[in-house]
Amino acid sequence: MGFEYLTNVPLEQARKDYVKLLESHGFAPKTEVIPVYEACGRVTARAVYAHICAPHYAASAMDGVAVNAKDTFGATETTPVTLQPGQYIVLDTGDPIPEDRDAVIMVEDLVKNEDGSITIHAAAAPWQHIRQIGEDVCAGEMILPGHMTVSPAAIGSMIAGGVLEIEVIRRPLVGIIPTGDEIIPPCTDPKPGDILEFNGSIFSAMVKGWGAEAVVYPIVPDKFEQIKDMVAKAASECDMVILNAGSSAGREDFSAKVIRELGEVLYHGIAMKPGKPAILGCQGAKPILGVPGYPVSGILVIEQLLKPLIDHWLQLPAAPAQYAGATLTRPVVSGLKYEEFVRVRMGCVGGRLMASPLSRGSGVVSSFMKADGILEVPQGLEGYEAGAEVSVRLLSPMEKLQNTLVVIGSHDPLLDELGDMLHLENPELYMSSSHVGSMGGIMAIRRGEAHAAGCHLLDTNDGTYNRSFMKKYFPKGDVKLVRCVGRQQGLMVAKGNPLNIRGFSDIAGENVRYVNRQKGSGTRILTDYLCKQEKLDASAIYGYDREELTHTSVAAQIVSGSADAGMGIYSAAKLYDLDFIPICIEEYDLIIPDHAWDTPMVQRLLATLKSDAFRDKILAMGGYTVECPGEVIPLD
Amino acid sequence: MGFEYLTNVPLEQARKDYVKLLESHGFAPKTEVIPVYEACGRVTARAVYAHICAPHYAASAMDGVAVNAKDTFGATETTPVTLQPGQYIVLDTGDPIPEDRDAVIMVEDLVKNEDGSITIHAAAAPWQHIRQIGEDVCAGEMILPGHMTVSPAAIGSMIAGGVLEIEVIRRPLVGIIPTGDEIIPPCTDPKPGDILEFNGSIFSAMVKGWGAEAVVYPIVPDKFEQIKDMVAKAASECDMVILNAGSSAGREDFSAKVIRELGEVLYHGIAMKPGKPAILGCQGAKPILGVPGYPVSGILVIEQLLKPLIDHWLQLPAAPAQYAGATLTRPVVSGLKYEEFVRVRMGCVGGRLMASPLSRGSGVVSSFMKADGILEVPQGLEGYEAGAEVSVRLLSPMEKLQNTLVVIGSHDPLLDELGDMLHLENPELYMSSSHVGSMGGIMAIRRGEAHAAGCHLLDTNDGTYNRSFMKKYFPKGDVKLVRCVGRQQGLMVAKGNPLNIRGFSDIAGENVRYVNRQKGSGTRILTDYLCKQEKLDASAIYGYDREELTHTSVAAQIVSGSADAGMGIYSAAKLYDLDFIPICIEEYDLIIPDHAWDTPMVQRLLATLKSDAFRDKILAMGGYTVECPGEVIPLD
Repeated sequence: MGFEYLTNVPLEQARKDYVKLLESHGFAPKTEVIPVYEACGRVTARAVYAHICAPHYAASAMDGVAVNAKDTFGATETTPVTLQPGQYIVLDTGDPIPEDRDAVIMVEDLVKNEDGSITIHAAAAPWQHIRQIGEDVCAGEMILPGHMTVSPAAIGSMIAGGVLEIEVIRRPLVGIIPTGDEIIPPCTDPKPGDILEFNGSIFSAMVKGWGAEAVVYPIVPDKFEQIKDMVAKAASECDMVILNAGSSAGREDFSAKVIRELGEVLYHGIAMKPGKPAILGCQGAKPILGVPGYPVSGILVIEQLLKPLIDHWLQLPAAPAQYAGATLTRPVVSGLKYEEFVRVRMGCVGGRLMASPLSRGSGVVSSFMKADGILEVPQGLEGYEAGAEVSVRLLSPMEKLQNTLVVIGSHDPLLDELGDMLHLENPELYMSSSHVGSMGGIMAIRRGEAHAAGCHLLDTNDGTYNRSFMKKYFPKGDVKLVRCVGRQQGLMVAKGNPLNIRGFSDIAGENVRYVNRQKGSGTRILTDYLCKQEKLDASAIYGYDREELTHTSVAAQIVSGSADAGMGIYSAAKLYDLDFIPICIEEYDLIIPDHAWDTPMVQRLLATLKSDAFRDKILAMGGYTVECPGEVIPLD
Repeated sequence: MGFEYLTNVPLEQARKDYVKLLESHGFAPKTEVIPVYEACGRVTARAVYAHICAPHYAASAMDGVAVNAKDTFGATETTPVTLQPGQYIVLDTGDPIPEDRDAVIMVEDLVKNEDGSITIHAAAAPWQHIRQIGEDVCAGEMILPGHMTVSPAAIGSMIAGGVLEIEVIRRPLVGIIPTGDEIIPPCTDPKPGDILEFNGSIFSAMVKGWGAEAVVYPIVPDKFEQIKDMVAKAASECDMVILNAGSSAGREDFSAKVIRELGEVLYHGIAMKPGKPAILGCQGAKPILGVPGYPVSGILVIEQLLKPLIDHWLQLPAAPAQYAGATLTRPVVSGLKYEEFVRVRMGCVGGRLMASPLSRGSGVVSSFMKADGILEVPQGLEGYEAGAEVSVRLLSPMEKLQNTLVVIGSHDPLLDELGDMLHLENPELYMSSSHVGSMGGIMAIRRGEAHAAGCHLLDTNDGTYNRSFMKKYFPKGDVKLVRCVGRQQGLMVAKGNPLNIRGFSDIAGENVRYVNRQKGSGTRILTDYLCKQEKLDASAIYGYDREELTHTSVAAQIVSGSADAGMGIYSAAKLYDLDFIPICIEEYDLIIPDHAWDTPMVQRLLATLKSDAFRDKILAMGGYTVECPGEVIPLD
């Protein structure tokens, strides 16, 4: 059980040693000859020279007549010269200059006479208005050096220079082998224990984006010989191989052994997290990279250790990563032994770029999808405190971050819908929402980390929502409370309500497995309040400590049968086709700080909130009441 | 003859009006459903929701045993609890949690007993070490909003959420129609008057780079009905049509008439240069863009007027262009009536970004290939003076500009070879060379515009090369003169020397058509000197005023028969298989300013100069002598 790591080699060293080892085995790009018109974005294998001149003939640069300049000498305003039909030849722009002519007179500069002759009032200089041969490209000239990326205009220059085919660096072919008994092809009805194979799709999209080709081999079960045969096949067919371990760390891991039998293993175990179990191996000049099964680990290992090989093959200098300074919203604790890659969500609030660490679970692939940047915590550093100024490698362009509305607070699916509508109507605007509960949202606004926060906090003294909290947490009054929706809160229970739950107090029943929301969420505060009201002992409720972060994840536990009841909103129950016992209608509002009020993002958000489309959407979701959304709620 | 422009509408207005007109006709993206694994880089047509939870079952997050937490209550260091085989179930990471278990105990936290039971010393909290259903993605949750670009990780998230196909915006299909009697398919032996069709290849590479698909139709001759039929066909098969006029402005231009008969023309004539003759037309919601035949005009019209339509179709906010401040090396004169797009070559010299205007001929496609940026001179501005600080739209990334060795001065093909070798050996370094003659190179160094200049200037007083000019033009001595090569200069004449030219004075022969180099070039200075020495009256030499910028272009005129003789270097004569009458050996050296000496670019250049590979290459070219290249020549 468990991996046995042989090494904990620093990432940078591993990267260098890997290239060195491969080069010693003859790792080098292959080339191919392709038609020039297909070469855009490809890298020239060697310098390209023109075969012919462009233009390949002396061409008229104007509409006019071709003449022999000598025939025009002496012509002036006062001593015009007349040329007879045999002396001039009419031609258009682009026409070749006849052999015995050496100048062009523009049509505007001549007078046509009735007898067919023309009169000119200025001498023509030899070679005037003639596009000389080779003005664009000369035969024999170098059009493009070697190892340069071909642009559209370079394609034109090459064709103009009579070059119809060129030798380019072949895109390396990366073979990807998914392995694992539990891994099954993507489907919509997996059985418990099945793990959908999607790493192959992620990895192949990544390597294609870097200029390689990819082939994903069929899934191989955890059988040593079968894995070995597949790796040997891939190594014979491809230029690089990714051997993707089953995601279970508990099974015997054959990867290192397979690679060792087919070739050699340079390192097994890199000082990076996630990604430590990576294996740097090869068969001769062909890299075979053992990649952990967890998707986030795999993504990082491939980015850190395979991309440099692809860049090297393509002879491209690695595009420099873009870094930006940002303020960390939460502490990041890291191990001294590793370089750690922490996914962060980013946004620009009040002129400051903020970075919020995302889930660090390496099985949570959506965290990579949501990430705007990677905080690289160097080996030997224990991490950073909240509020620290850190340098973050950007995954999203800065323009996007500057146009992202950052919403932190209570979760409601309507936020996703709102973000979708905002972006559809304003393609330049984006919304990023994080679910930390209503109190978390208030704190984020106070710390200047968000443009808006979803909030539904019950004041147990007077039954009002949100207003008294505004006064308490924003005594300076530098925020606005914006009406959003009324939401039906209640108990979600399995379809048909098999445990016959009638009201809130039934969650304390002996055979009821409750699933709760996290502390600080409005729903949790409501739940705690209801317990107090009903005089229930929370510690006696089974599952009261089992916390989920969203309404949908509570519903998901119930529908799967792993819990029997949980508080949540009607729309979540409807989505999962659960029964629902209404408890109360609460006010779900948005807190918006004054400093963000006049930003286009907030103003467009308010416009969307006030739109009929939003009302229609929300009412169709069910369980909401909509009254003047977007209206500012007076706080006095 | 000549175009008849109907309008001179400002570009920005034309762009806006065009979109407005098309939208009024229903211009909107089409969508298609594709497998998720093919969706990387595509744009979602609408929001994507998860079908299933990921994980879709409660899974062990550790290797260990699944238990019922209640069975472990009370276990402490001093009061261990023993569980019998039926009470625990061994499982690996990723295994499903059995229905009646609610906690996992890590293998490290238990003791296996000989009788098959296990002993634990701490109570398990319910749900500990269990990956809850939906930890990554919950069924029904929005995975991606609409109109978002799909990333590799998003593909993983969608497959994890049971989404196997998604609706994306179809790439628009752009039909490209080349027209013109003189246009022929690319070949290597065009006849005079033939123009190779390469615009289609340039345009299709461009639009593919912007996310569209392209189809290039067969070349259509200048026949109204044939053009009309082809445009109608393309409009029925494609989403957008480019009608590329023949490059001759002298022929009747059918484009506007064709478009008007098939649909409508919004504007014919845009206030942009190059590109003025553009036609903004449509057939219903399908844009039909009439594009001038000159490649540079066409490139700019498509970039300025078609790309916004593709962005609009793909629902992508236009990626903001990157601008950088730069010093203009030469004046740019522009017309008040147009917005002008001037291609510039750029480089970073002595910490300043310099921009040098390239050829403004719109037939010179290589100028676009060489361009690092576009200086956009607004309508209403007459241009800029040399030395002006201007804002340039970058075509090359800043990193490349910062790593580009700028060589300005005398032309020699060896510079291209040197640049090729430099880049092959140092993939991060580039060379850009401009041919302005030896004196032009000295001036460029004096103005701080170049890292190096090729120079071969004869001191007619003492027959030495370059040294006396260094003293004269760099009295402070803040440059180094670096030995490069000795070059054989002479007269290039047609193969077989039909005019029987024996020496320099023969160029004054009555039937000899000479072709000269531009003033300020070392070769021109040599030629002028030889004239003086031989007492030839330059004004009496036919073609003495016909100037070419490079040795190869002089050779090209001779080989094509449009000139009989010209001074140049042996390697150019050899390249074009011309006869060569040697005149002298000259010293071709490099001037390098002290401020650039210690840059990696210059140091790597010197290393390349000193390499055996360089010597081999140069000697193979012929006509050179190589003695200690890279050595600094003492100036005292």
